[in-house]
Amino acid sequence: MIYPELLQNLINFYKKLPGIGDKSAERMALATLDLSVKDVEKFSSSLIDCKNKLKNCKICGHITENEICHICENSNRNHNLICVIEDYKSVFSFEKVGNFRGVYHVLNGLISPMDGIGPEDINLSALVRRVASLENPELILALKSSIEGETTTLYIKKIFEDKKVTISRLSYGIPIGAEIDYLDIITLDKALEDRKKISE
Amino acid sequence: MIYPELLQNLINFYKKLPGIGDKSAERMALATLDLSVKDVEKFSSSLIDCKNKLKNCKICGHITENEICHICENSNRNHNLICVIEDYKSVFSFEKVGNFRGVYHVLNGLISPMDGIGPEDINLSALVRRVASLENPELILALKSSIEGETTTLYIKKIFEDKKVTISRLSYGIPIGAEIDYLDIITLDKALEDRKKISE
Repeated sequence: MIYPELLQNLINFYKKLPGIGDKSAERMALATLDLSVKDVEKFSSSLIDCKNKLKNCKICGHITENEICHICENSNRNHNLICVIEDYKSVFSFEKVGNFRGVYHVLNGLISPMDGIGPEDINLSALVRRVASLENPELILALKSSIEGETTTLYIKKIFEDKKVTISRLSYGIPIGAEIDYLDIITLDKALEDRKKISE
Repeated sequence: MIYPELLQNLINFYKKLPGIGDKSAERMALATLDLSVKDVEKFSSSLIDCKNKLKNCKICGHITENEICHICENSNRNHNLICVIEDYKSVFSFEKVGNFRGVYHVLNGLISPMDGIGPEDINLSALVRRVASLENPELILALKSSIEGETTTLYIKKIFEDKKVTISRLSYGIPIGAEIDYLDIITLDKALEDRKKISE
């Protein structure tokens, strides 16, 4: 064994993280030894805190340190406009873009009969209750374009069929900067179908 | 603020590690939330353990969980052949190569008058004591070819001038696989000087 056991343990934990291979994990573990004792102690408790103290927002399901997340608590946001997403990670993506002024609803999964995940297994009944309490609500479904994503989109469309709810989905199309020659045919087909008129 | 404070703290700690930028640190922090509570707890204590329980080997200065490291304790190794290195990280590099059957001496620094680091500030007196207790000792100086490395190499050579000690240094030359056209001139000059006869 090349590394002391304690160090090898730490290397193994770093390797569990995405994008971290043997070499990087080794460098990271050695760099950890160069941090101050105080920093390592804070790092260590930061890990535990993140895992134990973050909980789901009672309204939207996003992760938060409090009962209600800062997005749901923000009265400057449009609470009638709800972006429905698969998991809380998407919240961070949208918030980075920074243009969305509505709120979110985290489903915590997608309907997947193959995996035995039905509508009752994801955070849908809360969405129905939320929508029922709003006037002229609008839902933006931002789910991935997989079978599970499409199934969930269709299911949500069906639930609100008879209700006064505007529902849209994200547009499909060519990612900005992508080479058309290298695009997969399904995306290209969707981009053709969803084409946008730019001149009469 | 896009991330909850607890999560942002963790992201900041990951960013302190080498080669980890914003994006990677975010992905790593989010992936941490996906680990089991047990794994996160072990990860957290592994960090503390590495920092607090690893100490320097009383003989060679390498890091170890015990008083004496497993290399110094290994009777199958040649304890008369000592590879002198700047820091313990080099031990791992040599051990990965796996061909060196001697032992190490970790200097924990290099002589650097510019930074006020003199011979007494690095682990040299222990080396002198070690060498004095051996019969026909051999030192391999594996220090980097910087001004500090050269100064330290010269100083060690001088200390043992009148003693029966064989001293060598690593060879300089072209790294395997390197394009000669792109090599720096100093390395090329050294490679020329240290050329090896392959036929009479």
